[in-house]
Amino acid sequence: MRIIRSIPEMQKISGALKRKGVTIGFVPTMGALHEGHLSLIRQSRKENDITIVSIFVNPIQFGPQEDLKNYPRYFKKDVFLCQKEKVDFIFYPQANRMYPENFKTSVEVKELGKVLCGVSRPNHFCGVTTVVTKLFNIVQPAAAYFGQKDAQQATIIRRMVDDLNMPLKIKVMATVRDPDGLALSSRNIYLNRQERQDSLVLSKALGLAREMIRHGQRNAFSIIARMKALISSKRSAKIDYIAIVDSQTLKPVNTVKGNCLITLAVRFGKTRLIDNLKTGKKIGDRSHLFSRVRSSAK
Amino acid sequence: MRIIRSIPEMQKISGALKRKGVTIGFVPTMGALHEGHLSLIRQSRKENDITIVSIFVNPIQFGPQEDLKNYPRYFKKDVFLCQKEKVDFIFYPQANRMYPENFKTSVEVKELGKVLCGVSRPNHFCGVTTVVTKLFNIVQPAAAYFGQKDAQQATIIRRMVDDLNMPLKIKVMATVRDPDGLALSSRNIYLNRQERQDSLVLSKALGLAREMIRHGQRNAFSIIARMKALISSKRSAKIDYIAIVDSQTLKPVNTVKGNCLITLAVRFGKTRLIDNLKTGKKIGDRSHLFSRVRSSAK
Repeated sequence: MRIIRSIPEMQKISGALKRKGVTIGFVPTMGALHEGHLSLIRQSRKENDITIVSIFVNPIQFGPQEDLKNYPRYFKKDVFLCQKEKVDFIFYPQANRMYPENFKTSVEVKELGKVLCGVSRPNHFCGVTTVVTKLFNIVQPAAAYFGQKDAQQATIIRRMVDDLNMPLKIKVMATVRDPDGLALSSRNIYLNRQERQDSLVLSKALGLAREMIRHGQRNAFSIIARMKALISSKRSAKIDYIAIVDSQTLKPVNTVKGNCLITLAVRFGKTRLIDNLKTGKKIGDRSHLFSRVRSSAK
Repeated sequence: MRIIRSIPEMQKISGALKRKGVTIGFVPTMGALHEGHLSLIRQSRKENDITIVSIFVNPIQFGPQEDLKNYPRYFKKDVFLCQKEKVDFIFYPQANRMYPENFKTSVEVKELGKVLCGVSRPNHFCGVTTVVTKLFNIVQPAAAYFGQKDAQQATIIRRMVDDLNMPLKIKVMATVRDPDGLALSSRNIYLNRQERQDSLVLSKALGLAREMIRHGQRNAFSIIARMKALISSKRSAKIDYIAIVDSQTLKPVNTVKGNCLITLAVRFGKTRLIDNLKTGKKIGDRSHLFSRVRSSAK
Protein backbone atom coordinates (compact mmCIF):
# COMPACT_ATOMS: atom_id res chain seq x y z
CA MET A 1 0.00 0.00 0.00
CA ARG A 2 1.28 3.46 -0.88
CA ILE A 3 0.30 6.75 0.71
CA ILE A 4 0.19 9.57 -1.83
CA ARG A 5 0.08 13.15 -0.57
CA SER A 6 0.74 15.00 -3.83
CA ILE A 7 -2.22 15.78 -6.09
CA PRO A 8 -0.21 15.69 -9.37
CA GLU A 9 1.43 12.41 -8.32
CA MET A 10 -1.91 10.76 -7.54
CA GLN A 11 -3.33 12.02 -10.84
CA LYS A 12 -0.31 10.74 -12.73
CA ILE A 13 -0.58 7.29 -11.14
CA SER A 14 -4.33 7.08 -11.83
CA GLY A 15 -3.93 8.30 -15.39
CA ALA A 16 -1.21 5.75 -16.08
CA LEU A 17 -3.33 2.94 -14.58
CA LYS A 18 -6.32 4.03 -16.64
CA ARG A 19 -4.30 4.05 -19.85
CA LYS A 20 -3.29 0.47 -19.05
CA GLY A 21 -6.95 -0.52 -18.78
CA VAL A 22 -6.76 -1.07 -14.99
CA THR A 23 -10.10 -0.36 -13.27
CA ILE A 24 -9.90 1.82 -10.19
CA GLY A 25 -12.41 1.56 -7.34
CA PHE A 26 -12.55 4.67 -5.18
CA VAL A 27 -13.71 5.20 -1.60
CA PRO A 28 -13.67 8.90 -0.67
CA THR A 29 -13.60 9.41 3.11
CA MET A 30 -12.86 12.01 5.77
CA GLY A 31 -10.90 9.38 7.71
CA ALA A 32 -11.82 8.13 11.20
CA LEU A 33 -12.68 4.94 9.38
CA HIS A 34 -15.27 2.56 10.77
CA GLU A 35 -16.94 -0.63 9.56
CA GLY A 36 -19.17 1.42 7.25
CA HIS A 37 -16.13 2.64 5.34
CA LEU A 38 -14.57 -0.83 5.43
CA SER A 39 -17.69 -2.32 3.82
CA LEU A 40 -17.22 0.15 0.95
CA ILE A 41 -13.55 -0.79 0.63
CA ARG A 42 -14.41 -4.50 0.54
CA GLN A 43 -17.01 -3.94 -2.17
CA SER A 44 -14.56 -1.88 -4.18
CA ARG A 45 -11.93 -4.61 -3.91
CA LYS A 46 -14.44 -7.17 -5.17
CA GLU A 47 -15.39 -5.12 -8.19
CA ASN A 48 -12.16 -3.44 -9.34
CA ASP A 49 -8.52 -4.17 -10.11
CA ILE A 50 -7.23 -1.69 -7.56
CA THR A 51 -8.75 0.34 -4.74
CA ILE A 52 -7.90 3.90 -3.76
CA VAL A 53 -9.13 5.40 -0.47
CA SER A 54 -8.94 9.17 -0.01
CA ILE A 55 -8.66 10.62 3.47
CA PHE A 56 -9.43 14.32 3.44
CA VAL A 57 -11.37 16.36 5.98
CA ASN A 58 -12.86 18.75 3.46
CA PRO A 59 -13.02 22.24 4.99
CA ILE A 60 -15.54 23.69 2.50
CA GLN A 61 -18.29 21.28 3.51
CA PHE A 62 -18.25 22.47 7.13
CA GLY A 63 -20.24 25.51 8.25
CA PRO A 64 -18.56 28.22 10.34
CA GLN A 65 -20.20 26.91 13.54
CA GLU A 66 -19.51 23.27 12.76
CA ASP A 67 -16.93 20.75 13.96
CA LEU A 68 -14.13 21.13 11.37
CA LYS A 69 -11.49 21.67 14.05
CA ASN A 70 -12.65 18.83 16.28
CA TYR A 71 -13.56 16.37 13.54
CA PRO A 72 -11.88 13.09 14.57
CA ARG A 73 -8.52 12.49 12.88
CA TYR A 74 -6.89 9.11 13.40
CA PHE A 75 -4.57 8.87 10.45
CA LYS A 76 -2.33 6.11 11.86
CA LYS A 77 -5.30 3.92 12.73
CA ASP A 78 -6.82 4.61 9.30
CA VAL A 79 -3.59 3.56 7.60
CA PHE A 80 -3.56 0.36 9.66
CA LEU A 81 -7.15 -0.44 8.71
CA CYS A 82 -6.55 0.28 5.01
CA GLN A 83 -3.48 -1.92 5.03
CA LYS A 84 -5.46 -4.72 6.64
CA GLU A 85 -8.14 -4.37 3.96
CA LYS A 86 -5.46 -4.49 1.23
CA VAL A 87 -6.16 -1.02 -0.10
CA ASP A 88 -3.68 -0.19 -2.89
CA PHE A 89 -3.34 3.58 -2.40
CA ILE A 90 -4.33 6.06 0.27
CA PHE A 91 -4.70 9.54 -1.21
CA TYR A 92 -4.05 12.01 1.59
CA PRO A 93 -3.89 15.56 0.18
CA GLN A 94 -3.36 18.80 2.08
CA ALA A 95 -6.17 21.36 2.33
CA ASN A 96 -4.02 24.23 1.06
CA ARG A 97 -3.20 22.23 -2.06
CA MET A 98 -6.80 21.24 -2.66
CA TYR A 99 -7.90 24.86 -2.21
CA PRO A 100 -5.10 27.24 -3.16
CA GLU A 101 -5.56 30.94 -2.49
CA ASN A 102 -7.23 31.85 -5.79
CA PHE A 103 -9.62 28.88 -5.84
CA LYS A 104 -12.96 30.03 -7.28
CA THR A 105 -14.91 27.11 -8.76
CA SER A 106 -17.94 25.34 -7.36
CA VAL A 107 -20.10 22.45 -8.50
CA GLU A 108 -23.66 22.61 -7.27
CA VAL A 109 -26.77 20.49 -7.64
CA LYS A 110 -29.57 23.02 -7.36
CA GLU A 111 -32.61 22.39 -5.13
CA LEU A 112 -31.45 18.97 -3.87
CA GLY A 113 -28.80 20.57 -1.68
CA LYS A 114 -31.13 23.10 -0.07
CA VAL A 115 -33.63 20.73 1.59
CA LEU A 116 -33.37 18.31 4.56
CA CYS A 117 -29.79 18.62 5.88
CA GLY A 118 -29.29 21.57 3.52
CA VAL A 119 -31.61 23.73 5.64
CA SER A 120 -29.34 23.72 8.68
CA ARG A 121 -26.16 23.21 6.61
CA PRO A 122 -26.67 25.64 3.68
CA ASN A 123 -23.27 25.27 1.96
CA HIS A 124 -22.58 21.68 2.95
CA PHE A 125 -23.61 19.86 -0.21
CA CYS A 126 -21.99 22.39 -2.52
CA GLY A 127 -18.78 21.68 -0.59
CA VAL A 128 -19.35 17.96 -1.02
CA THR A 129 -20.06 18.05 -4.76
CA THR A 130 -17.10 20.35 -5.36
CA VAL A 131 -14.62 18.17 -3.49
CA VAL A 132 -16.04 14.94 -4.94
CA THR A 133 -15.64 16.36 -8.47
CA LYS A 134 -12.04 17.24 -7.68
CA LEU A 135 -11.35 13.80 -6.21
CA PHE A 136 -12.96 12.05 -9.19
CA ASN A 137 -10.80 14.07 -11.57
CA ILE A 138 -7.67 13.23 -9.59
CA VAL A 139 -8.38 9.54 -8.95
CA GLN A 140 -10.26 8.83 -12.23
CA PRO A 141 -12.16 5.83 -10.87
CA ALA A 142 -14.38 3.40 -12.77
CA ALA A 143 -16.61 3.23 -9.68
CA ALA A 144 -16.95 5.20 -6.44
CA TYR A 145 -18.51 3.90 -3.22
CA PHE A 146 -20.72 5.81 -0.78
CA GLY A 147 -22.78 4.83 2.25
CA GLN A 148 -26.56 4.86 2.34
CA LYS A 149 -26.37 6.50 5.79
CA ASP A 150 -25.66 9.75 3.94
CA ALA A 151 -28.71 9.27 1.73
CA GLN A 152 -29.08 12.89 0.63
CA GLN A 153 -25.41 13.01 -0.27
CA ALA A 154 -25.80 9.82 -2.32
CA THR A 155 -28.83 11.21 -4.18
CA ILE A 156 -27.02 14.47 -4.91
CA ILE A 157 -23.84 12.76 -6.10
CA ARG A 158 -25.78 10.41 -8.37
CA ARG A 159 -27.59 13.44 -9.85
CA MET A 160 -24.30 15.29 -10.35
CA VAL A 161 -22.61 12.32 -12.01
CA ASP A 162 -25.57 11.87 -14.37
CA ASP A 163 -25.93 15.58 -15.11
CA LEU A 164 -22.24 16.14 -15.79
CA ASN A 165 -21.75 12.82 -17.62
CA MET A 166 -18.91 11.85 -15.31
CA PRO A 167 -17.43 8.63 -16.69
CA LEU A 168 -17.86 6.42 -13.62
CA LYS A 169 -20.42 4.43 -11.64
CA ILE A 170 -21.75 5.41 -8.22
CA LYS A 171 -22.39 2.52 -5.83
CA VAL A 172 -24.31 3.12 -2.64
CA MET A 173 -23.87 0.47 0.04
CA ALA A 174 -26.16 -0.34 2.96
CA THR A 175 -25.72 1.48 6.26
CA VAL A 176 -23.64 -0.48 8.75
CA ARG A 177 -24.86 -0.39 12.37
CA ASP A 178 -23.65 -1.17 15.84
CA PRO A 179 -25.25 -4.34 17.23
CA ASP A 180 -27.78 -2.20 19.12
CA GLY A 181 -28.88 -0.43 15.94
CA LEU A 182 -27.02 2.89 15.95
CA ALA A 183 -25.83 3.73 12.43
CA LEU A 184 -22.04 3.95 12.38
CA SER A 185 -20.66 7.47 12.05
CA SER A 186 -17.30 9.01 12.80
CA ARG A 187 -19.23 11.51 14.90
CA ASN A 188 -20.63 8.87 17.28
CA ILE A 189 -17.52 9.27 19.45
CA TYR A 190 -18.75 12.74 20.42
CA LEU A 191 -21.71 11.20 22.31
CA ASN A 192 -21.57 10.89 26.09
CA ARG A 193 -23.00 7.83 27.78
CA GLN A 194 -26.55 9.18 28.14
CA GLU A 195 -26.62 10.55 24.59
CA ARG A 196 -25.27 7.27 23.20
CA GLN A 197 -28.11 5.47 25.01
CA ASP A 198 -30.73 7.98 23.83
CA SER A 199 -29.47 7.86 20.24
CA LEU A 200 -30.83 4.32 19.89
CA VAL A 201 -34.20 5.98 19.47
CA LEU A 202 -33.26 6.88 15.88
CA SER A 203 -33.07 3.32 14.56
CA LYS A 204 -36.08 2.47 16.73
CA ALA A 205 -38.10 5.27 15.14
CA LEU A 206 -37.15 4.04 11.67
CA GLY A 207 -38.07 0.49 12.73
CA LEU A 208 -41.40 1.81 13.94
CA ALA A 209 -41.99 3.49 10.57
CA ARG A 210 -41.20 0.26 8.81
CA GLU A 211 -43.61 -1.67 11.00
CA MET A 212 -46.36 0.89 10.37
CA ILE A 213 -45.82 0.59 6.61
CA ARG A 214 -45.79 -3.20 6.85
CA HIS A 215 -49.13 -3.01 8.58
CA GLY A 216 -50.56 -0.92 5.77
CA GLN A 217 -50.05 2.65 6.96
CA ARG A 218 -49.31 4.87 3.96
CA ASN A 219 -49.98 8.31 5.38
CA ALA A 220 -46.67 10.11 5.71
CA PHE A 221 -47.94 12.55 8.34
CA SER A 222 -49.15 9.77 10.63
CA ILE A 223 -45.86 7.95 10.37
CA ILE A 224 -43.84 11.11 11.01
CA ALA A 225 -46.06 12.01 13.98
CA ARG A 226 -45.44 8.65 15.67
CA MET A 227 -41.68 8.88 14.97
CA LYS A 228 -41.63 12.39 16.38
CA ALA A 229 -43.41 11.32 19.55
CA LEU A 230 -41.00 8.46 20.07
CA ILE A 231 -37.86 10.51 19.49
CA SER A 232 -39.13 13.40 21.61
CA SER A 233 -39.48 11.03 24.57
CA LYS A 234 -35.68 11.15 24.94
CA ARG A 235 -34.66 14.17 26.93
CA SER A 236 -31.31 14.77 25.14
CA ALA A 237 -32.90 14.53 21.64
CA LYS A 238 -33.57 17.72 19.67
CA ILE A 239 -35.18 16.99 16.32
CA ASP A 240 -33.73 18.86 13.33
CA TYR A 241 -36.08 17.18 10.85
CA ILE A 242 -38.02 13.99 10.19
CA ALA A 243 -39.22 13.66 6.62
CA ILE A 244 -40.55 11.20 4.08
CA VAL A 245 -39.42 12.21 0.62
CA ASP A 246 -39.15 10.88 -2.91
CA SER A 247 -35.72 9.27 -3.00
CA GLN A 248 -34.70 11.00 -6.23
CA THR A 249 -36.30 14.44 -6.05
CA LEU A 250 -36.09 14.64 -2.23
CA LYS A 251 -39.53 16.30 -2.27
CA PRO A 252 -41.88 15.44 0.62
CA VAL A 253 -44.59 12.90 -0.15
CA ASN A 254 -48.03 12.68 1.43
CA THR A 255 -48.43 9.00 0.72
CA VAL A 256 -45.72 6.36 1.04
CA LYS A 257 -45.44 4.53 -2.26
CA GLY A 258 -42.62 3.65 -4.63
CA ASN A 259 -39.10 4.63 -3.74
CA CYS A 260 -39.26 6.85 -0.71
CA LEU A 261 -36.73 7.82 1.85
CA ILE A 262 -37.69 8.11 5.51
CA THR A 263 -34.97 10.34 6.79
CA LEU A 264 -34.12 12.24 9.94
CA ALA A 265 -31.54 14.42 11.66
CA VAL A 266 -31.53 14.75 15.42
CA ARG A 267 -29.16 16.47 17.81
CA PHE A 268 -28.03 14.78 21.01
CA GLY A 269 -26.26 17.47 22.97
CA LYS A 270 -23.87 19.04 20.48
CA THR A 271 -23.82 16.02 18.19
CA ARG A 272 -26.02 15.96 15.14
CA LEU A 273 -26.81 12.44 13.91
CA ILE A 274 -28.59 11.36 10.75
CA ASP A 275 -30.22 8.10 9.74
CA ASN A 276 -32.66 6.90 7.11
CA LEU A 277 -34.61 4.02 5.68
CA LYS A 278 -35.46 3.35 2.06
CA THR A 279 -38.89 2.05 1.16
CA GLY A 280 -40.28 0.78 -2.12
CA LYS A 281 -40.65 -2.50 -3.89
CA LYS A 282 -37.26 -2.55 -5.49
CA ILE A 283 -35.22 -0.71 -2.96
CA GLY A 284 -37.07 -1.72 0.19
CA ASP A 285 -35.73 -5.23 -0.06
CA ARG A 286 -32.20 -3.95 -0.14
CA SER A 287 -32.52 -1.60 2.80
CA HIS A 288 -31.15 -4.18 5.23
CA LEU A 289 -32.19 -2.21 8.24
CA PHE A 290 -30.62 -3.96 11.21
CA SER A 291 -29.41 -6.80 9.01
CA ARG A 292 -25.77 -5.74 8.97
CA VAL A 293 -24.03 -5.15 12.25
CA ARG A 294 -20.50 -4.29 13.11
CA SER A 295 -18.40 -7.37 13.61
CA SER A 296 -17.19 -7.22 17.18
CA ALA A 297 -13.50 -8.17 17.03
CA LYS A 298 -11.94 -5.18 15.26
CA MET B 1 -14.71 10.62 -40.10
CA ARG B 2 -17.63 9.51 -37.96
CA ILE B 3 -20.51 11.64 -36.71
CA ILE B 4 -21.65 10.58 -33.23
CA ARG B 5 -24.99 11.84 -31.95
CA SER B 6 -25.37 9.62 -28.88
CA ILE B 7 -23.77 10.74 -25.62
CA PRO B 8 -23.18 7.20 -24.26
CA GLU B 9 -21.72 6.10 -27.60
CA MET B 10 -19.29 9.03 -27.71
CA GLN B 11 -18.30 8.38 -24.10
CA LYS B 12 -17.77 4.68 -24.81
CA ILE B 13 -15.58 5.42 -27.83
CA SER B 14 -13.51 7.99 -25.92
CA GLY B 15 -13.15 5.70 -22.90
CA ALA B 16 -12.00 2.80 -25.09
CA LEU B 17 -9.49 5.04 -26.88
CA LYS B 18 -8.19 6.35 -23.58
CA ARG B 19 -7.72 2.84 -22.20
CA LYS B 20 -5.62 2.07 -25.28
CA GLY B 21 -3.39 5.05 -24.51
CA VAL B 22 -4.62 7.04 -27.53
CA THR B 23 -4.47 10.82 -26.91
CA ILE B 24 -7.59 12.75 -27.82
CA GLY B 25 -7.48 16.39 -28.88
CA PHE B 26 -10.83 18.18 -28.49
CA VAL B 27 -12.24 21.27 -30.16
CA PRO B 28 -15.60 22.24 -28.62
CA THR B 29 -17.63 24.48 -30.96
CA MET B 30 -21.13 25.76 -31.57
CA GLY B 31 -20.71 25.02 -35.28
CA ALA B 32 -20.78 27.67 -38.01
CA LEU B 33 -17.09 26.89 -38.30
CA HIS B 34 -14.66 29.49 -39.59
CA GLU B 35 -10.90 29.73 -39.94
CA GLY B 36 -10.59 30.38 -36.20
CA HIS B 37 -12.07 26.96 -35.45
CA LEU B 38 -10.02 25.38 -38.21
CA SER B 39 -6.80 26.73 -36.68
CA LEU B 40 -7.78 24.96 -33.43
CA ILE B 41 -8.47 21.73 -35.31
CA ARG B 42 -5.11 21.91 -37.07
CA GLN B 43 -3.30 22.47 -33.80
CA SER B 44 -5.16 19.57 -32.21
CA ARG B 45 -4.23 17.29 -35.10
CA LYS B 46 -0.57 18.25 -34.70
CA GLU B 47 -0.51 17.46 -30.99
CA ASN B 48 -2.78 14.41 -30.57
CA ASP B 49 -3.44 10.96 -31.98
CA ILE B 50 -7.04 11.73 -32.84
CA THR B 51 -9.19 14.87 -32.93
CA ILE B 52 -12.82 15.20 -31.88
CA VAL B 53 -14.86 18.31 -32.73
CA SER B 54 -18.14 18.89 -30.91
CA ILE B 55 -20.89 20.90 -32.57
CA PHE B 56 -23.48 21.94 -30.04
CA VAL B 57 -25.35 25.23 -29.77
CA ASN B 58 -25.54 25.24 -25.99
CA PRO B 59 -28.90 26.70 -24.92
CA ILE B 60 -27.92 27.43 -21.30
CA GLN B 61 -25.23 29.91 -22.27
CA PHE B 62 -27.71 32.16 -24.07
CA GLY B 63 -29.74 34.77 -22.19
CA PRO B 64 -33.52 35.00 -22.75
CA GLN B 65 -33.09 38.04 -25.03
CA GLU B 66 -30.16 36.59 -26.95
CA ASP B 67 -29.77 34.93 -30.33
CA LEU B 68 -30.20 31.21 -29.51
CA LYS B 69 -32.89 30.74 -32.15
CA ASN B 70 -31.08 32.65 -34.85
CA TYR B 71 -27.58 31.46 -34.05
CA PRO B 72 -26.12 30.32 -37.42
CA ARG B 73 -26.39 26.57 -38.00
CA TYR B 74 -24.61 25.16 -41.05
CA PHE B 75 -24.19 21.53 -40.13
CA LYS B 76 -23.54 20.24 -43.65
CA LYS B 77 -20.90 22.85 -44.30
CA ASP B 78 -19.34 22.14 -40.90
CA VAL B 79 -19.18 18.42 -41.71
CA PHE B 80 -17.52 19.23 -45.02
CA LEU B 81 -14.93 21.43 -43.34
CA CYS B 82 -14.19 18.87 -40.62
CA GLN B 83 -13.78 16.16 -43.23
CA LYS B 84 -11.38 18.34 -45.15
CA GLU B 85 -9.37 18.93 -41.97
CA LYS B 86 -9.26 15.18 -41.31
CA VAL B 87 -11.18 15.37 -38.04
CA ASP B 88 -11.75 11.83 -36.66
CA PHE B 89 -15.11 12.33 -34.92
CA ILE B 90 -17.77 15.00 -34.87
CA PHE B 91 -19.77 14.84 -31.64
CA TYR B 92 -23.21 16.29 -32.38
CA PRO B 93 -25.51 15.76 -29.39
CA GLN B 94 -29.12 16.85 -29.00
CA ALA B 95 -30.04 19.54 -26.48
CA ASN B 96 -32.74 17.43 -24.81
CA ARG B 97 -30.19 14.69 -24.18
CA MET B 98 -27.58 17.08 -22.86
CA TYR B 99 -30.19 18.69 -20.58
CA PRO B 100 -32.90 16.19 -19.68
CA GLU B 101 -35.92 17.41 -17.76
CA ASN B 102 -34.54 16.89 -14.25
CA PHE B 103 -31.12 18.40 -14.98
CA LYS B 104 -29.99 20.36 -11.91
CA THR B 105 -26.20 20.69 -11.80
CA SER B 106 -24.06 23.71 -12.53
CA VAL B 107 -20.35 24.41 -12.55
CA GLU B 108 -19.43 27.98 -11.81
CA VAL B 109 -16.26 29.99 -11.50
CA LYS B 110 -17.17 32.70 -9.04
CA GLU B 111 -16.30 36.36 -9.65
CA LEU B 112 -14.59 35.78 -13.02
CA GLY B 113 -17.94 35.15 -14.70
CA LYS B 114 -19.61 38.28 -13.34
CA VAL B 115 -17.33 40.95 -14.81
CA LEU B 116 -16.77 42.19 -18.41
CA CYS B 117 -19.12 40.16 -20.64
CA GLY B 118 -20.71 38.72 -17.50
CA VAL B 119 -22.31 42.08 -16.69
CA SER B 120 -24.57 42.07 -19.75
CA ARG B 121 -24.67 38.23 -19.93
CA PRO B 122 -25.17 37.22 -16.28
CA ASN B 123 -25.60 33.44 -16.75
CA HIS B 124 -23.47 33.04 -19.84
CA PHE B 125 -20.24 31.79 -18.31
CA CYS B 126 -21.98 29.43 -15.90
CA GLY B 127 -23.62 27.92 -18.99
CA VAL B 128 -20.23 27.67 -20.66
CA THR B 129 -18.41 26.05 -17.73
CA THR B 130 -21.28 23.61 -17.20
CA VAL B 131 -21.39 22.46 -20.83
CA VAL B 132 -17.61 22.34 -21.13
CA THR B 133 -17.42 20.13 -18.02
CA LYS B 134 -20.02 17.81 -19.57
CA LEU B 135 -18.19 17.72 -22.90
CA PHE B 136 -14.84 17.04 -21.21
CA ASN B 137 -16.39 14.14 -19.28
CA ILE B 138 -17.91 12.71 -22.45
CA VAL B 139 -14.92 13.20 -24.76
CA GLN B 140 -12.17 12.69 -22.13
CA PRO B 141 -9.54 14.63 -24.04
CA ALA B 142 -5.86 14.99 -23.24
CA ALA B 143 -6.03 18.57 -24.54
CA ALA B 144 -8.81 20.99 -25.47
CA TYR B 145 -8.45 23.98 -27.79
CA PHE B 146 -10.04 27.41 -27.43
CA GLY B 147 -9.64 30.73 -29.23
CA GLN B 148 -8.06 33.80 -27.69
CA LYS B 149 -10.88 35.89 -29.17
CA ASP B 150 -13.02 34.64 -26.27
CA ALA B 151 -10.39 35.71 -23.75
CA GLN B 152 -12.66 35.80 -20.70
CA GLN B 153 -13.96 32.34 -21.55
CA ALA B 154 -10.39 31.07 -21.86
CA THR B 155 -9.40 32.56 -18.49
CA ILE B 156 -12.48 31.07 -16.82
CA ILE B 157 -12.00 27.63 -18.34
CA ARG B 158 -8.34 27.54 -17.34
CA ARG B 159 -9.34 28.48 -13.79
CA MET B 160 -12.04 25.79 -13.73
CA VAL B 161 -9.70 23.10 -15.04
CA ASP B 162 -7.06 24.02 -12.44
CA ASP B 163 -9.55 24.31 -9.59
CA LEU B 164 -11.32 21.03 -10.34
CA ASN B 165 -8.11 19.16 -11.24
CA MET B 166 -9.53 18.14 -14.59
CA PRO B 167 -7.02 15.75 -16.18
CA LEU B 168 -6.38 17.65 -19.41
CA LYS B 169 -4.50 20.61 -20.88
CA ILE B 170 -6.15 23.79 -22.11
CA LYS B 171 -4.57 25.37 -25.18
CA VAL B 172 -5.56 28.85 -26.22
CA MET B 173 -4.75 29.77 -29.82
CA ALA B 174 -4.34 33.22 -31.34
CA THR B 175 -7.36 35.03 -32.73
CA VAL B 176 -7.76 34.60 -36.47
CA ARG B 177 -8.81 37.72 -38.38
CA ASP B 178 -10.18 38.72 -41.73
CA PRO B 179 -7.52 40.43 -43.88
CA ASP B 180 -8.95 43.83 -42.89
CA GLY B 181 -8.52 43.06 -39.18
CA LEU B 182 -11.99 41.97 -38.01
CA ALA B 183 -11.71 39.03 -35.60
CA LEU B 184 -13.50 36.02 -37.04
CA SER B 185 -16.78 35.16 -35.31
CA SER B 186 -19.78 33.11 -36.31
CA ARG B 187 -21.80 36.21 -35.46
CA ASN B 188 -20.09 38.41 -38.08
CA ILE B 189 -22.67 37.25 -40.64
CA TYR B 190 -25.31 39.24 -38.73
CA LEU B 191 -23.60 42.51 -39.71
CA ASN B 192 -25.00 44.60 -42.54
CA ARG B 193 -22.63 46.35 -44.90
CA GLN B 194 -22.34 49.55 -42.90
CA GLU B 195 -21.93 47.69 -39.61
CA ARG B 196 -19.29 45.41 -41.14
CA GLN B 197 -17.40 48.52 -42.26
CA ASP B 198 -17.78 50.22 -38.88
CA SER B 199 -16.70 47.08 -37.00
CA LEU B 200 -13.15 47.52 -38.26
CA VAL B 201 -12.82 50.16 -35.59
CA LEU B 202 -12.44 47.40 -32.98
CA SER B 203 -9.15 46.04 -34.24
CA LYS B 204 -8.07 49.61 -34.99
CA ALA B 205 -8.77 50.62 -31.39
CA LEU B 206 -6.73 47.67 -30.14
CA GLY B 207 -3.95 48.58 -32.56
CA LEU B 208 -4.07 52.13 -31.22
CA ALA B 209 -3.77 50.79 -27.66
CA ARG B 210 -0.78 48.73 -28.69
CA GLU B 211 0.89 51.70 -30.32
CA MET B 212 0.30 53.85 -27.23
CA ILE B 213 1.88 51.16 -25.04
CA ARG B 214 4.79 50.82 -27.45
CA HIS B 215 5.39 54.53 -27.13
CA GLY B 216 5.50 54.28 -23.35
CA GLN B 217 1.93 55.00 -22.28
CA ARG B 218 1.12 52.91 -19.21
CA ASN B 219 -1.96 54.70 -17.88
CA ALA B 220 -4.97 52.46 -18.45
CA PHE B 221 -7.47 55.33 -18.29
CA SER B 222 -5.66 57.33 -20.98
CA ILE B 223 -5.54 54.32 -23.28
CA ILE B 224 -9.20 53.46 -22.70
CA ALA B 225 -10.21 57.10 -23.28
CA ARG B 226 -8.50 57.18 -26.68
CA MET B 227 -10.04 53.82 -27.66
CA LYS B 228 -13.45 55.04 -26.57
CA ALA B 229 -13.15 58.19 -28.64
CA LEU B 230 -12.11 56.23 -31.70
CA ILE B 231 -14.88 53.64 -31.41
CA SER B 232 -17.53 56.26 -30.63
CA SER B 233 -16.70 57.99 -33.91
CA LYS B 234 -18.61 55.19 -35.68
CA ARG B 235 -22.30 55.90 -35.70
CA SER B 236 -23.47 52.27 -35.50
CA ALA B 237 -21.15 51.43 -32.58
CA LYS B 238 -22.57 51.20 -29.06
CA ILE B 239 -19.87 50.43 -26.51
CA ASP B 240 -20.72 47.74 -23.95
CA TYR B 241 -17.33 47.94 -22.25
CA ILE B 242 -13.68 48.71 -22.88
CA ALA B 243 -11.40 47.50 -20.11
CA ILE B 244 -7.81 46.77 -19.26
CA VAL B 245 -7.63 43.95 -16.74
CA ASP B 246 -5.21 41.48 -15.23
CA SER B 247 -5.37 38.50 -17.56
CA GLN B 248 -5.83 36.00 -14.72
CA THR B 249 -7.96 37.80 -12.15
CA LEU B 250 -9.82 39.93 -14.76
CA LYS B 251 -9.62 42.83 -12.30
CA PRO B 252 -9.13 46.30 -13.81
CA VAL B 253 -5.62 47.69 -13.64
CA ASN B 254 -4.62 51.34 -13.40
CA THR B 255 -1.21 50.77 -14.91
CA VAL B 256 -0.41 48.50 -17.83
CA LYS B 257 2.32 46.10 -16.76
CA GLY B 258 2.80 42.34 -16.84
CA ASN B 259 0.11 40.18 -18.36
CA CYS B 260 -2.87 42.38 -19.07
CA LEU B 261 -5.81 42.00 -21.32
CA ILE B 262 -7.16 44.96 -23.28
CA THR B 263 -10.65 43.82 -23.98
CA LEU B 264 -13.87 45.23 -25.37
CA ALA B 265 -17.43 44.46 -26.34
CA VAL B 266 -19.29 46.71 -28.76
CA ARG B 267 -22.69 46.45 -30.38
CA PHE B 268 -23.15 47.22 -34.05
CA GLY B 269 -26.89 47.26 -34.55
CA LYS B 270 -28.14 44.10 -32.92
CA THR B 271 -24.80 42.35 -33.15
CA ARG B 272 -22.50 42.30 -30.15
CA LEU B 273 -18.84 41.79 -31.05
CA ILE B 274 -15.88 41.19 -28.76
CA ASP B 275 -12.17 41.49 -29.31
CA ASN B 276 -9.05 41.74 -27.19
CA LEU B 277 -5.32 42.10 -27.10
CA LYS B 278 -2.88 40.57 -24.63
CA THR B 279 0.01 42.62 -23.33
CA GLY B 280 3.01 41.63 -21.25
CA LYS B 281 6.55 40.52 -21.83
CA LYS B 282 5.80 36.86 -22.26
CA ILE B 283 2.39 36.94 -23.79
CA GLY B 284 2.64 40.18 -25.73
CA ASP B 285 5.02 38.60 -28.20
CA ARG B 286 2.56 35.83 -28.92
CA SER B 287 -0.46 38.05 -29.39
CA HIS B 288 -0.02 38.12 -33.17
CA LEU B 289 -2.45 40.97 -33.61
CA PHE B 290 -2.98 41.20 -37.36
CA SER B 291 -0.30 38.59 -37.98
CA ARG B 292 -2.71 35.78 -38.85
CA VAL B 293 -5.29 36.39 -41.51
CA ARG B 294 -7.86 34.19 -43.09
CA SER B 295 -6.49 32.46 -46.14
CA SER B 296 -8.60 33.69 -49.02
CA ALA B 297 -9.40 30.56 -51.02
CA LYS B 298 -11.83 28.74 -48.73
